[in-house]
Amino acid sequence: MPALKTARRFIRRVKRVCWSLSIFFSFGYQGCTTKETPQSADTSSSDFLYQYSIISALQAGVFDGNLTFGEVKKHGDFGVGTFNRVDGELVINLGKLYRIRSNGTVSEVADRDSTSLAFVKFFKADSSFTIQTAGLTLDQIQKKIAAALPANEIHAIRLKGTFAKMTTRAPAPAQKPYPTLNDHLARSQVIFNLTNTTGVAVGFLIPAYMEKVNVPGFHFHYLSDDLKSGGHVYDFTATQITVDIDRTKGYYVELNTNTDFGKVTL
Amino acid sequence: MPALKTARRFIRRVKRVCWSLSIFFSFGYQGCTTKETPQSADTSSSDFLYQYSIISALQAGVFDGNLTFGEVKKHGDFGVGTFNRVDGELVINLGKLYRIRSNGTVSEVADRDSTSLAFVKFFKADSSFTIQTAGLTLDQIQKKIAAALPANEIHAIRLKGTFAKMTTRAPAPAQKPYPTLNDHLARSQVIFNLTNTTGVAVGFLIPAYMEKVNVPGFHFHYLSDDLKSGGHVYDFTATQITVDIDRTKGYYVELNTNTDFGKVTL
Repeated sequence: MPALKTARRFIRRVKRVCWSLSIFFSFGYQGCTTKETPQSADTSSSDFLYQYSIISALQAGVFDGNLTFGEVKKHGDFGVGTFNRVDGELVINLGKLYRIRSNGTVSEVADRDSTSLAFVKFFKADSSFTIQTAGLTLDQIQKKIAAALPANEIHAIRLKGTFAKMTTRAPAPAQKPYPTLNDHLARSQVIFNLTNTTGVAVGFLIPAYMEKVNVPGFHFHYLSDDLKSGGHVYDFTATQITVDIDRTKGYYVELNTNTDFGKVTL
Repeated sequence: MPALKTARRFIRRVKRVCWSLSIFFSFGYQGCTTKETPQSADTSSSDFLYQYSIISALQAGVFDGNLTFGEVKKHGDFGVGTFNRVDGELVINLGKLYRIRSNGTVSEVADRDSTSLAFVKFFKADSSFTIQTAGLTLDQIQKKIAAALPANEIHAIRLKGTFAKMTTRAPAPAQKPYPTLNDHLARSQVIFNLTNTTGVAVGFLIPAYMEKVNVPGFHFHYLSDDLKSGGHVYDFTATQITVDIDRTKGYYVELNTNTDFGKVTL
């Protein structure tokens, strides 16, 4: 049915243009470059969010997993996550993996290290735009992005920019017997108040129906370009920012095979 | 690291034997054959539950989808689901697809037809056992199976047996504008009270954390061996039953690309 396929392709193209225009106008355009990469029609896993384990398991204290970062890399070149024992925050960007520890240091991640939770994707921007309005906060930017995106879908989002203020956190590793994540963070997370920092925030916009599986809403981890700071993003004020958005076809979850996974009530 | 691999394989084998034994004893064994198929260590998608769209979208009235059954078959040879307009109940077993309509008829599904919701897998039993205790109800069998399986995981389950009583349903197709699923079923589902029927119930055991995405708990669709009756299973009383269980590594969700999907609150 080539005619039907052509018609569908046309409808998708019209939708994409409308979507770009809606972003264009809703952002009160001051200087915007939009680049469109046609979304592939294939159903291979490369256009799906991949995740190892689920957020509710980490929240319940399942802090160890059996997936190495060597394996994680096979599922994406972009993403966020944590490490066994919740020893730091993970940033994956352009195929490189970094760990931000609670002492503030940034280091490359060894393939043999393992994770208890990771959300990754092969990032390919379907839409990109630049916002030059100064002083936008994380909350303001999130609201604008969410308003411009189709509801109920899953998007990978990269924010490249300069930030007058950037507040992040990273946890110290937990000791067994593991507490819940909230209890662990309350005791051991360290807050970093960065100023005038340039870098990238990588993350996702997750729909509410994925609650217990992923983190509903926006979720970003930050890494400065000089590889000297980063962490789980709490807040920021941006001077200038470029937004890359990658619309997914869905997601897949590989369950944590660690025995702790079967011992918690999820 | 071949030594590590061997050790892991050994541990997996011990776990599997323990699991079989626990099933063996918990079922008050009267006549049981257990067949073990070693679970593959590969991480290909064939050992994942695949689903098109999510249950909360169907519940909200998203009754049309864009995935043909020709495509569905690429993701599994076993499963359940529905059709566009909720026109019947889907049973997939041994690679064959059947539709049970509200008039009670069973027909093979055409590749060109489409679905708004389907849960499928390439079924490969990790464990099989036979229960000859007469008179067990669906609820009793479900409780025994659930008690024997590891918590928080996803299992495909096939029940082959003879049923003194089998209560199923199938809905008539909906008309636009579509109501919610509950409203549609209240008006248009037809109940079938089958007796002394032999056939197969195919379905899944889904953990609570997948609520809104799939159907938490057990969910079976039935098809009689003579291909004359079936439907979504409400209840049954079994005379003799064989249980095949396929433990998955996880699941993946392909989102419904129908425009209605973006219009509902999920």
